[in-house]
Amino acid sequence: MYRPEIKVLDCSIRDGGLINNWKFSDELVKSTYASLCEAGVDYMEIGYKASKTQFDPSHFGKWRFCDDEDVKKIIDGVEPKTKLSCMVDIGRVEEKDIAVRSQSPFSMIRVACYMKDVDKAISLSDMILDKGYESTINIMAVSTNTQREIDEGLNDLSKSRAPIVYVVDSYGAMYCEDITALVKQYKAALPGKTIGIHTHNNRQLAFGNTIQAIIDGANMLDASVYGIGRGPGNCCLELLLSFLQNPSYELRPVLQLIQDYYLPLREKIEWGYIIPYMITGMLNEHPRIAIAHRDSEKKDDFSGFYDKLTTPEPEDEIRT
Amino acid sequence: MYRPEIKVLDCSIRDGGLINNWKFSDELVKSTYASLCEAGVDYMEIGYKASKTQFDPSHFGKWRFCDDEDVKKIIDGVEPKTKLSCMVDIGRVEEKDIAVRSQSPFSMIRVACYMKDVDKAISLSDMILDKGYESTINIMAVSTNTQREIDEGLNDLSKSRAPIVYVVDSYGAMYCEDITALVKQYKAALPGKTIGIHTHNNRQLAFGNTIQAIIDGANMLDASVYGIGRGPGNCCLELLLSFLQNPSYELRPVLQLIQDYYLPLREKIEWGYIIPYMITGMLNEHPRIAIAHRDSEKKDDFSGFYDKLTTPEPEDEIRT
Repeated sequence: MYRPEIKVLDCSIRDGGLINNWKFSDELVKSTYASLCEAGVDYMEIGYKASKTQFDPSHFGKWRFCDDEDVKKIIDGVEPKTKLSCMVDIGRVEEKDIAVRSQSPFSMIRVACYMKDVDKAISLSDMILDKGYESTINIMAVSTNTQREIDEGLNDLSKSRAPIVYVVDSYGAMYCEDITALVKQYKAALPGKTIGIHTHNNRQLAFGNTIQAIIDGANMLDASVYGIGRGPGNCCLELLLSFLQNPSYELRPVLQLIQDYYLPLREKIEWGYIIPYMITGMLNEHPRIAIAHRDSEKKDDFSGFYDKLTTPEPEDEIRT
Repeated sequence: MYRPEIKVLDCSIRDGGLINNWKFSDELVKSTYASLCEAGVDYMEIGYKASKTQFDPSHFGKWRFCDDEDVKKIIDGVEPKTKLSCMVDIGRVEEKDIAVRSQSPFSMIRVACYMKDVDKAISLSDMILDKGYESTINIMAVSTNTQREIDEGLNDLSKSRAPIVYVVDSYGAMYCEDITALVKQYKAALPGKTIGIHTHNNRQLAFGNTIQAIIDGANMLDASVYGIGRGPGNCCLELLLSFLQNPSYELRPVLQLIQDYYLPLREKIEWGYIIPYMITGMLNEHPRIAIAHRDSEKKDDFSGFYDKLTTPEPEDEIRT
């Protein structure tokens, strides 16, 4: 599948940091950046920009905040072929934390929101665009929205300046048919805008669903090295590059990066195909209950976890 | 997706045995059978029937041979809701090894072959049908066949009595578009026959491709518990049952089976998403070279493996 409009964004550090509170070694982050540059990946999302008045820096690694100075140290000495991105959440970042583009190592700042907050996301995105950055709006957990909510959010977005809008399968709950329906709907409602896709691998469908989104017209594709990401993780970057028949991408640097850094890291922190996350994906539930289960002594009690999520509580019966 | 014609076949022991020479404990095999019965899975493929004149019984576990008496001991005492299947390879089984159906615990015997041997497969399948069994023909490695070879093989099969013919992605090389093209072609060429699908998970597409095959009309679906199978393994049974909205299937017994037997087994023998198999899948190569690599001291040298498979040998240049 070669389509010159397609861009790939690696979110290894940003999404992977949700596992370990962004406590990656500088060596791993620097090697990731250098390898992504060598592989020709278009963007690297290195973390979240967040206000230090809301998150205690002693509890989080530096990629929870993405201070421009920390970023500059990482990229120093590497030929900068890959653009840098960070993500912001509504209400968790202050305008003063975002420099103007000309003084920042970042090219893109992405806004994550729920459908109910699309208006706030548009406002934040406008501020980011005004400072000279590229920007996207990533609408999380759309698998939980009603059709009316989606219609309303897309209508608002259609009137905005946001150039890129993402379909995000936060819960790893979607099948290829859901992807097709949403990508087609986003495309129809948002003429002239680029559609992005961000998947989770709860049911081993992250790569397959990304392929489906490409077929349906998505041109901005998220992936991560060896699939790193909270819980089941994301679409694997190495799989995606092997699918995209684009001579500007090189698979080998990503394979080297996996064997040198991400395979050893996987021995220390957990992500991948893990049954409790498969169950939350199947039930279209937030993974937080699976995360708690994996942190408990019953982490491998899969049938017990399934029972807990599927057996109605007595009081449920009166909610008719 | 509820379609009453759909049947599920579990190939955990048969395909998983390719990892450990079928040396499973009786307890695991018996628990697998009992759990599949409880889950309502239609068929369990317990191994290969093979001639002991060709394979030394001291080197293989009993499911390389599937003696009827061994099978009877396993199923003794379990309410037999799941039918039993075994697989035969052309030239590796003798007619005397196959009793008539009325004296056997098996309901189905499946024939595996390459496209070039379809004529021999039809002959073997006819013998099996004549003895009273259900039968299928599973054409392996179709991703390596030319269109002319496929047309010719399907033409032969269209004139045969074989009731079920499988699309088999032996190398884990296919995308959803390949699945669609083949399932549609098999359906068109084989009117009145059921189409089956057997996938491998080299690129995390086994489940997604099985869904695609279902959408395209395949009604006989192979899967295995926790995806067990040689190398990357197969489509996970637990994922498939969660997708099939069929009240006759129960997910919980499979989850219990995974936590009791297959999760501990996975600590001892290897299968799943492993980069050298991802590379052979991407290159449409037999996994044997990845198996050898995983058995070597360089098992985690992914970039070296990639180089070996993608760097042309000097003598290749003269094959123009």
